[in-house]
Amino acid sequence: MRAKEISSAVTKRLPRYYRYLSELKEQGAERISSKELSERMQVTASQIRQDLNNFGGFGQQGYGYNVEHLYNEIGKILGLNRTRKVIIVGAGHIGQALANYPDFEKRGFCICGIFDVAKEVVGDKVGSLIVQDMSRMPEFVKKEKIQIAILTVPKEEAAGIAKQLVDLGVEGFWNFALVDLKLSEGVVVENVHLEESLMNLAYNISRLDIVNSKLGVDYEEN
Amino acid sequence: MRAKEISSAVTKRLPRYYRYLSELKEQGAERISSKELSERMQVTASQIRQDLNNFGGFGQQGYGYNVEHLYNEIGKILGLNRTRKVIIVGAGHIGQALANYPDFEKRGFCICGIFDVAKEVVGDKVGSLIVQDMSRMPEFVKKEKIQIAILTVPKEEAAGIAKQLVDLGVEGFWNFALVDLKLSEGVVVENVHLEESLMNLAYNISRLDIVNSKLGVDYEEN
Repeated sequence: MRAKEISSAVTKRLPRYYRYLSELKEQGAERISSKELSERMQVTASQIRQDLNNFGGFGQQGYGYNVEHLYNEIGKILGLNRTRKVIIVGAGHIGQALANYPDFEKRGFCICGIFDVAKEVVGDKVGSLIVQDMSRMPEFVKKEKIQIAILTVPKEEAAGIAKQLVDLGVEGFWNFALVDLKLSEGVVVENVHLEESLMNLAYNISRLDIVNSKLGVDYEEN
Repeated sequence: MRAKEISSAVTKRLPRYYRYLSELKEQGAERISSKELSERMQVTASQIRQDLNNFGGFGQQGYGYNVEHLYNEIGKILGLNRTRKVIIVGAGHIGQALANYPDFEKRGFCICGIFDVAKEVVGDKVGSLIVQDMSRMPEFVKKEKIQIAILTVPKEEAAGIAKQLVDLGVEGFWNFALVDLKLSEGVVVENVHLEESLMNLAYNISRLDIVNSKLGVDYEEN
């Protein structure tokens, strides 16, 4: 696969293609046209064709896409065919929920360890792991060649821990702490800022309230 | 507040402004210039001015922004000054983690109930709530006038439950189920698709691997 630059708008859509193709595969579909796929995904067929052309295009005129082939190719592009070693830092409610998430391994993410500073949780069993004391993290990360860390620590701690992990060789973060990590170039950060997502919901509901109350007034005026 | 159309690119940035202003407020800052704010947030000062101008602009030439005033105004725009009644549907690991999330109430989200079909968890205490059987959900939603539902159910169940809740008057969903809900117009859906976020991380790490291995080759060639 050639490493050409593809806009992040396109690559951010790939997981969604992958999901729809996975469902088609489960349903036993062998091939699909961009038109059918566009109806299911509620995006235009031309967008689908353009998006997939970025990766060389996998469609054939008059046939459409071979579901299994396209699924596998997108999986490869997404890097899901590799195994990556991951730790979870922070064994609070979210950290524990993620440790119990069953689909990581399917995607090549091997959760090898979970760490916390709180004596109350160190030693607890979470999923198939035992919570370890944070002081053991550096040695573990080096020895196991951990590539990715999931951060579910308080926002005040996140930056310091992330920096420490980068120095230990960690290349990517799935960051649940509500802080923008400013790390050296070449380190990948994917944020899941739940509170901001919730605020987006609040905003959109407020807009709806305004629209509804405006409609209400218009009705009364008629 | 006038209900004019603001692009979603702008409104999606508001929670991040709100977060930085909240931190400034905690640090005791009374005012901030767009230049200082832009350095902290690592966006351009002109973008900040443009974004905030959408809401009438709160800055004054030569003074900057009053932190507390701007914080409160953005909070109002985000609708965080209202109280909204919320239920969680699905008391699995993620549902339970969210029920224990302490900052909901601060943002006006009152979690009033949590429901599940699994007899093993019905009756369990989660945070300050008791897990109720799903069969009790419809009456509860109507009686309590629930406005928002957090969906942490399997993807196969999500669409049916969401439709039922819309019929019962629910206006917004915080959807953790890995499915695109196709609901009637005027219903707000904010998705948190953790698996897709994880795939984005995998993709970006793969790109990094490719870049690093390319650099490696270049080095050997020199």
